[in-house]
Order: sequence, then structure tokens, then C-alpha cells
Amino acid sequence: MSQQVEMIVNAQWVVTVDEQARVLKDHAIIVDQAKILAIEPIGQHDFTTDNLVERPNHIILPGLINAHTHAAMSLFRGLADDLPLMSWLNDHIWPAEGKWVNENFVHDGTQLAMAEMIRGGTTCFNDMYFFPNVAARVANEAHMRASFAFPILDFPSAWAQNADEYIHKGLQLHDDFRSHDLININFGPHAPYTVSDEPLKRVNTISVETQMGIHIHLHETAHEVDEAQQQNGQRPIERMNDMGLLTPQFQAVHMTQLTDEDIELLAQTGTHVVHCPESNLKLASGFCPIAKLVNQGVNVALGTDGAASNNDLDMFGEMRTAALLAKGVAEDPAAIPAEQALQMATINGAKALGIDDVTGSLAVGKSADFIAVDTQSPETSPFYNPVSQLVYSTTADKVSDTWVAGKALMTNRQLLTLNCDSIMQRSKEWHQKIAAADQQN
Amino acid sequence: MSQQVEMIVNAQWVVTVDEQARVLKDHAIIVDQAKILAIEPIGQHDFTTDNLVERPNHIILPGLINAHTHAAMSLFRGLADDLPLMSWLNDHIWPAEGKWVNENFVHDGTQLAMAEMIRGGTTCFNDMYFFPNVAARVANEAHMRASFAFPILDFPSAWAQNADEYIHKGLQLHDDFRSHDLININFGPHAPYTVSDEPLKRVNTISVETQMGIHIHLHETAHEVDEAQQQNGQRPIERMNDMGLLTPQFQAVHMTQLTDEDIELLAQTGTHVVHCPESNLKLASGFCPIAKLVNQGVNVALGTDGAASNNDLDMFGEMRTAALLAKGVAEDPAAIPAEQALQMATINGAKALGIDDVTGSLAVGKSADFIAVDTQSPETSPFYNPVSQLVYSTTADKVSDTWVAGKALMTNRQLLTLNCDSIMQRSKEWHQKIAAADQQN
Repeated sequence: MSQQVEMIVNAQWVVTVDEQARVLKDHAIIVDQAKILAIEPIGQHDFTTDNLVERPNHIILPGLINAHTHAAMSLFRGLADDLPLMSWLNDHIWPAEGKWVNENFVHDGTQLAMAEMIRGGTTCFNDMYFFPNVAARVANEAHMRASFAFPILDFPSAWAQNADEYIHKGLQLHDDFRSHDLININFGPHAPYTVSDEPLKRVNTISVETQMGIHIHLHETAHEVDEAQQQNGQRPIERMNDMGLLTPQFQAVHMTQLTDEDIELLAQTGTHVVHCPESNLKLASGFCPIAKLVNQGVNVALGTDGAASNNDLDMFGEMRTAALLAKGVAEDPAAIPAEQALQMATINGAKALGIDDVTGSLAVGKSADFIAVDTQSPETSPFYNPVSQLVYSTTADKVSDTWVAGKALMTNRQLLTLNCDSIMQRSKEWHQKIAAADQQN
Repeated sequence: MSQQVEMIVNAQWVVTVDEQARVLKDHAIIVDQAKILAIEPIGQHDFTTDNLVERPNHIILPGLINAHTHAAMSLFRGLADDLPLMSWLNDHIWPAEGKWVNENFVHDGTQLAMAEMIRGGTTCFNDMYFFPNVAARVANEAHMRASFAFPILDFPSAWAQNADEYIHKGLQLHDDFRSHDLININFGPHAPYTVSDEPLKRVNTISVETQMGIHIHLHETAHEVDEAQQQNGQRPIERMNDMGLLTPQFQAVHMTQLTDEDIELLAQTGTHVVHCPESNLKLASGFCPIAKLVNQGVNVALGTDGAASNNDLDMFGEMRTAALLAKGVAEDPAAIPAEQALQMATINGAKALGIDDVTGSLAVGKSADFIAVDTQSPETSPFYNPVSQLVYSTTADKVSDTWVAGKALMTNRQLLTLNCDSIMQRSKEWHQKIAAADQQN
């Protein structure tokens, strides 16, 4: 009486990141209709399939969730490094964005970013960039799971002229993808210092009605906090709180400047924090105290930020940096153990994005979003503990397979939903144009 | 009138890390008798060879130098993570070392470490571990360049019974490799708190006579410094200075606790600092202020430390962490730019080990120790700047080839001087024994 299913993946280890943090040896993941139907010991179940995937030297784990990036900025990777923040922005990044960002740029840059992310085991990303309509289309074509925090600014860009138009276009996009399985649309007000109270209040009102998320850069630098205090007499987080924005729909990105009172406020309101350790280091923004946040019960997700300030979208690297840096900052080698770092890169990201009912862990009924990691290499030998191995010695190149909603996006390191050669060729063309113009600055 | 040579490597980019920091496009490296004979534009020279290596999409750079590791401890990779320092040492690492470290362990562990290092573009490592005689033999067999800082302790280990015997055995080893091209032997007194004044003074006397290096863990933690101050009334660095140890032969590893006066002392005496950022983070040891050190003219080299506290021997990762962390610690995004980070991982390591006349940069007359890095991947596209690319987006898996003294140790990711399958098999056997015993603790 065996039941025929769409796919069975047999693995040496299954790291579920579920509520019991189960780590299962020699288990099979049974997939049907894009979902996880069961997780059973190999050979001790009644399911059969025409699509049996054997991964005898591999760990299967939930696909990683990059909770903050600017995907298309991958085309600016390495354009300008090692510069003071204002020179980096004023002399390089903003002029380049002003000159180059259009629908084609976002199309090609988002594809480049997705190629890197799928190869590195990321199945879901939260993007915050111009032309989210284009990015959402190419993400859907590549069958990646993605949330788009559409931009809102007080000033014009290539995508919209003013806050009203940003919000109008974004809500239109939200309608377009209302019942979509893979794509979510949220609000992406850029930062407290670029968006005034009126649009923020509108965003809040609609968020309360629709349960849409609000994704914002907050307390990224000491300068931002100091300037706000001088101008408004209050810290940005207080201003957000006064407007009622701090709720479980609110995703505060960076958060390098936090007092104990701030942390208590985040915990009380259920506000999510998205930690971007490598970008914070590279731009010398400060240190987000994630061990304190986690101890106070704040949900901390993980993001790479854009490739212009990282310079990669490698969530294995980011997870490792988060775990290592947290110990240094907390002065405690037991801070943010491997299990917590892995949660940050998976289920906590899903919680922040409001999609933890669908993805972020391996559990019956959730979407079949998972990856396989090859454990057979000198770099990952010997093998004492699967979770420790994933966080402290696994690198992105060890990802062999990536599935989203049961569909293979990469098999044995071959991309299946993106044309890598074409992406690299277009990246080269953009490079030539962008580099020539940058040198004139 | 063309001259026949042993090998010519044609590359898209040659990053020399020489004194002019030359970055050369479309150049050939001409190799003969284990040395670099010339570096010339492709096609604009008179050399011919039967061994022409075409690397048209690659950067050639000096092999990376891992200036501090405990290679054989790779067999303990991931054995015990996320623990308070004293539990990590007392309950796991020291019992495991006491039980397992012997000649076979060092043989197999060092081979495992070298497999990882060669695959990751490291051509030279400085090892500090028991049975350096065994480690030196297997390094020589694999044709890696290596320095061995033979251990010196006040107390017995599997290798020697007391300081006299450690020094005696070490000097014997130094004699054995006196005129060796690839292997150097230096003093490796473990730390100020494990080696008393008498043996340190003997080491110093012999070092002055022989110019042998002295490699020591110093100011790794605040606890070490505080305890020394309580017991001796002075900081360990002052004690070293009082004994006349601080010289250009002295390699001070870790140095997370430094006052401005300490830094001035290091600069004045020409003492080298070996920075191990990932180990310092993982064990929450503190932050070495490398931007300050470099600004004061101190030579800063880079090491991974052992895999038990990292958990890898990946110098590309270490270089990136060093560059990123330095910015965060210095609160300056322009601190330790890519060029400086690359120097730390190459020529500065050679200087610290006293072998910069032989290796560490690409220059005519130096040993042909270099590597090729493939630039064609989504992760490293687009390609604006070779040095920035090497430091901020290149990962170890992108290394295609590794040469030491003109001999290929890896070609197109295939190891040529080590048997990877056999190494992995032995690693598995050690794992089973070690894990079973560790669980009884």
C-alpha cells in the first residue's frame, strides 16, 4: 500500500531547525505537491517515487534566508572599497546608482545575485531596491522565494518621484502578487533620516490593516542616532515607537547602536532585528549586540546587505561571521552557539519576514525549501557534529543542491533555472560601462 | 636566441605584492630552477618552455603564508565548540591531546592540514606543535614550505619531559634541516605562563647566535595579562623585554591586549605580531588593534591558529576577516585596505618568519611559490579591481593551482603531492576513536 510521491531525498543527516532542533541520521525527506509530506528513517516508510535523490554524504537543512540585501547592487561589487563612508556614498555609489539604475540594471543585477545565492544555499531573500516589480518578476522566473520591501523615500529616484508615488506603486505590486506562493511584498521605507513622519504614518496604518511587513534601516551608525537626537531631540527608535511602528510586523535592520532600554523596547514590542555583521564591519558602522538581543528574547535574523558593502551574498560566511563576532563582542566564547547562528540564518529570517508558517525549517506541511551540503572534503574533516560543521567549517561551495517548493534550482552545482553564462556575460558588459564612468569621478 | 626554461605561466593578472605593489595585466611568470627568472608581458619575451601553463581567466599571486597554526589539531576540528575557555581546554582539548597525540596523530593530522592549506592557496605554514620532527618530514614529502616552532614547556608532554629536553630535541631538528630549501626550524616556547625565565634566557642566547626565530603566544587574553601582573608585578611583554627577547627574531602571536606603550615597544624593537582574528573571536580573547600596529610601523602577519579554535585553515577567509574586523575595531572603513590585508597574508608572514629573501612576493630571484585564482564565477563578478577581489570576494575554493619552488602541488584543484582519499580515510578513523573517548568526559 505504498504511496507514490513526487520526490524522496535520502540523506546521511537531516538538520531540521525545528522547535526540537532535531538532527536526524540516515533520514529521507518525502516531498509532494511542493511540500514536505514526511521525514522518516531511510527504508522505514511506505512512500515510493520516480524521483529518488541519493545524498549519502550530505547534510540536508532548510534553505538559508538572506533577510536583508540589495540584490541588483551585485553589479557594484568591488567598485569602491576601503573608503570613508561619505566618499564611498557621495563619490561612487550614489553617482553610479543615479547613472545606471534602470529596469535592465535591476534585471541583470538581480539575476547575478540569485545565481550567487542559489549556489550558496540561499532559497529566500529579502530585497530592498528600486524597480521591485522587475526584481519580483525575475525572482519568480528563477523560482526563488523572495520578499520585496519596496522603496519609500521623501525624494525622487528612477522608480518614483515622491513618497506618495513610491507607496502607490508598491501597493500596486502588492496587489499583483497577493496570492503568489513564492513572492511577498512589504513596505521598505529607506531609513528614519530619508522618510518623514507623514508617509511613515500612512505605512503604519496600511500595515495594521493588511499585516504587510515594514523593513527599514535603523540605527545603522552612531552618526544617524546623534544627528536625529540633535534635530528631533529623540533617538530614531523612540520616534518609530511614538508612531506605533514597533510591532511584530517591523523589521529593524542593522541596529548597531542600542541601549539596554532600546533592547527592552524591541523585546516588548516583538520587533525583529536583522543583523548584517559583515556590512557593519566593512563600513565600520558599529557592533550589533546580538547575544544580548537573543537573551532578551528578540528575534534576530541575518542578512548580507548588498554586495557593494560586503562583498558577497554568502549566507554561510555571514552565519559564521555572526557566530564568531558575537563571541568577541559579548566577551563570551559560549555566546551565540552554532544552533542559534543556524536559526538566525533560517527560521528567524522566516519569522522576521512573516513567512515562518511556510518556510525556515524542515517540518511536515512546510514548503520543500531545502539544500544539500557535501560533507566530504579535507576542509570539513573530521566530522564530529553536523550543526557545528555547518556553522564553523562549511563554505558556500560545499552546497550541492538547492530546492525551492520541491523544485530543484541547482543539482550537483549546476544551476537549472538561471543561465549562468549569459548572466556572467551581461555582468561583464555592465562592468565595462560602470568602471569607465566611475573613473571619471 | 630564445632561452629554454622549466615553466612559463601566462595569466590575466599578476598581483606581485612587491615593494611597488605592482598589479600586471596579461603577464607571464618565467620559472627556472625553482625560482622566478622573470615576469614579462605575455608574448614580449624570449623564453620558451615545454611546460606552458595558460591561465587566461586567473590572477597569479604569491602563495599565502599561514604564520601561526597547530596543523595536526585539524583532527580535533569541531570536537568541542561554543564552550567557556576553561571547559574547552580542561574537559576536551587537553584530555584529547593527552590521550591521542603521538607520532601517528601528528603524521595524519599534519597531512590533513596540508591538504586543506594547499587547496586554499597556502604555500607556507608556521607550525607550533608536538613531534615537529614528524611534521617536518611530512611537509617535506608534500613539498610544502614550512617553519616549525618546536615546543618548549616547563612540564612534560608526549614529546619531551622538561625544558632541557624540548630545547635539546629542537636544536637537533634544527641541525637536521640546517641547509634545507623548504623547511626552517625556530624556537616555540608556548607562552609566558608555561615557560619560566631560565629556558627563555637560554632560547634568547641561542637565538642571538644563530638568528633562529622565537615564536610565542603572547597577550592572548586579558586573564593572562592580569594574572602575570598579580604574580610578577609586570605585564608579560615587559618581562620579555627585560630578558632582551624583543627583537626582529621575535614573533608575538595574538596580542589582543596592547597599550599604546606596548605598541611603541613593539615598533622600536622590530618585534613581529602574528594576528589570528578568527581564533581570537571564537575564543572571545579580545581584539588585536592591527590598524594601530600598522600605523606605528609594526610588521603584522596573519595566522589561522589551529582548526580546533577556528575551525579552518583558510587564509582567504582569515585575510577577509582581518580586513573587515580591523575596520570595525578602528571605527574607520578605510583602515587596513585590501592591499595591506594581502601583504599580511603574504610578504609580512615571510618577514615574520625571516624568509622574506626567499618567498612572500613575486620578484625575480625569489622562489616560485605562487597560486592561481579563477576569477570566473557569479561570486566574483563583476571584476573591478584584482586586489579588492582577492580580499573581499575570493574564497578558497577558487584557487585552481598551487606551486611551491616551481613544483605544482595542485593543478586544476587536483592535489599532486598528497593522497586525499587516504588522508580522509585516516581522518575518519581518528574521528571514531576520538569522539568515542570525548563523550566519556
